[in-house]
Amino acid sequence: MPVYQHNLKDKKIDFNTILDKVRVFAPATVANMICGFDILGFAVDEPGDEVKMYRVAEPGVRIRSIVGDGGRLPLGADRNTVSACVKMLLNDLGILQDIGVEIELIKHMPIGSGLGSSSASTVAGLFAINALLNNPLTKDELMPYCVEGERLACGHGHADNVAPALMGGITLVRGGADLDIVKIPVPKELYAGIVFPQVDVPTRDARQLIKEKVLLKDAVTQWGNIAGLVAGLFQEDYDLISRSMQDVIIEPSRAILIPEFYAMKEIALAHGALSFGISGSGPSVVAVSKGPEVAELVTTKIQDHLSANGIESFKYVSAVNVEGPKVLSFND
Amino acid sequence: MPVYQHNLKDKKIDFNTILDKVRVFAPATVANMICGFDILGFAVDEPGDEVKMYRVAEPGVRIRSIVGDGGRLPLGADRNTVSACVKMLLNDLGILQDIGVEIELIKHMPIGSGLGSSSASTVAGLFAINALLNNPLTKDELMPYCVEGERLACGHGHADNVAPALMGGITLVRGGADLDIVKIPVPKELYAGIVFPQVDVPTRDARQLIKEKVLLKDAVTQWGNIAGLVAGLFQEDYDLISRSMQDVIIEPSRAILIPEFYAMKEIALAHGALSFGISGSGPSVVAVSKGPEVAELVTTKIQDHLSANGIESFKYVSAVNVEGPKVLSFND
Repeated sequence: MPVYQHNLKDKKIDFNTILDKVRVFAPATVANMICGFDILGFAVDEPGDEVKMYRVAEPGVRIRSIVGDGGRLPLGADRNTVSACVKMLLNDLGILQDIGVEIELIKHMPIGSGLGSSSASTVAGLFAINALLNNPLTKDELMPYCVEGERLACGHGHADNVAPALMGGITLVRGGADLDIVKIPVPKELYAGIVFPQVDVPTRDARQLIKEKVLLKDAVTQWGNIAGLVAGLFQEDYDLISRSMQDVIIEPSRAILIPEFYAMKEIALAHGALSFGISGSGPSVVAVSKGPEVAELVTTKIQDHLSANGIESFKYVSAVNVEGPKVLSFND
Repeated sequence: MPVYQHNLKDKKIDFNTILDKVRVFAPATVANMICGFDILGFAVDEPGDEVKMYRVAEPGVRIRSIVGDGGRLPLGADRNTVSACVKMLLNDLGILQDIGVEIELIKHMPIGSGLGSSSASTVAGLFAINALLNNPLTKDELMPYCVEGERLACGHGHADNVAPALMGGITLVRGGADLDIVKIPVPKELYAGIVFPQVDVPTRDARQLIKEKVLLKDAVTQWGNIAGLVAGLFQEDYDLISRSMQDVIIEPSRAILIPEFYAMKEIALAHGALSFGISGSGPSVVAVSKGPEVAELVTTKIQDHLSANGIESFKYVSAVNVEGPKVLSFND
């Protein structure tokens, strides 16, 4: 049963209430949440992407500039995911011919990091255009456009990054294309210690490593872990979360792409992380921790280890972001 | 991490407080809960097995009688699962040579029904001996003996029936042999409409039908459903429970053993059941329903259909049993 089906033609846009400009932040996301391949994910407070959006006189949607992408993202309005999604939304609202919009995209995280980089940009862009139009759409109504953005960016229209990026918190995506998105409660002390080693792991390659068939007994172990994780999150039972957050299906295939993965895992668990695994398709790794101190300690130790092995890295220590995207300013 | 590890030698049994007799009920159980193969299960108020246990002068454990098994269960104390588990427990307590126990087993459900028949008997027996001894063990401490009983009865030491039978309510069993058992909240209006068609499906045959490998994409669908079901149970969200309680892995293989399965499913869903599927390894089927009226209607319609096709059946309409086993009497 499709949960997201909307007819945007019914929306009346009042051109008198459209804003001049808006500046929006959307969070990075940790897809899979270690044991929930393709269904679970959570948003973090840091990093995240920003979109500045301006209403201009000349109709159409244009990218004004992109900062922080190292020149890798296309500037053409139909090829850039952010502008393409904004165009799609304006078209479905029936106002694409009537409004001029220019976009500045400020990327605060690298592309191909496994942190939902494209999702953060897409969600920021769609949240920005909705804010600029004085919020005619609910988040549920924005969601299909976010998923479409993922399809444009990755060739894979999945919601496991855009769902937490847009909804905030921890999300479950079930039912595949039906987009049945369920919010899962966030235990207060749940922190992510993220380390992004400076190596390149394209999502497509990471997907190709995954086997098409899995042993039923492994699948049973995995769904027991997923059920345990969901129960642990509802009950704020950090021990259960820790016992359950183990991936016996995907990690064994993908870890090979990430240098020092098992050494990092050993360090994380030895220093008190609840769990450690790959963020999305990597190469970023995440130490899910109880409290910021553990996340801080673990990421420091991991960076030391990587550095000793000649691998540069970034780190982020963050609570789970429960808000999703937000307007930073209407004047800047 | 094994959650159940106990040293029963430390328990001191006070022979002065041992009771003369006790009569115990333990509930039938619906293993798998449709989408959670080998990890989820719930207990029902009806049917269930009874054990009457008597302290006698002559040391040793003996089966006095078995009622309702059609003569299929062994009476020898080492071969009968109930007495064998009681002996094992008394041995671990170091008092097997010092106490005499006689058992009457009253079966209220058929063997091989898919309703956890052997589990109900085993749990009743172990709960009874614990009650007779004035409750020296917690349920957690009784659990490994219940699992051992399953191993004796089915050749498969799994907790998916004994966990809900002993703990009551809805249980998650994760971590395989580690016996990590998690109680999941029971929505107040959750009812089971169970129909047991009079056909024979041995558990071993039902297991053999299951494929050793499954498609990853099906496994992802399944674990999305399991996560949705657990979330739905915590949130008392009957729509989410209904959407999630679907089995794409096991049902397609096992349904073939159950005559009229898909016709029954159609009837159940057409008459308002939240979900319909196989109870354990069948042939019993279960219509999970909101409220007793729907469960009553659905099971009546299914029985009518089976009857029209020349298949006799039993039915049970029951709330989820949240208590587990209970003492019925100390005098009877």
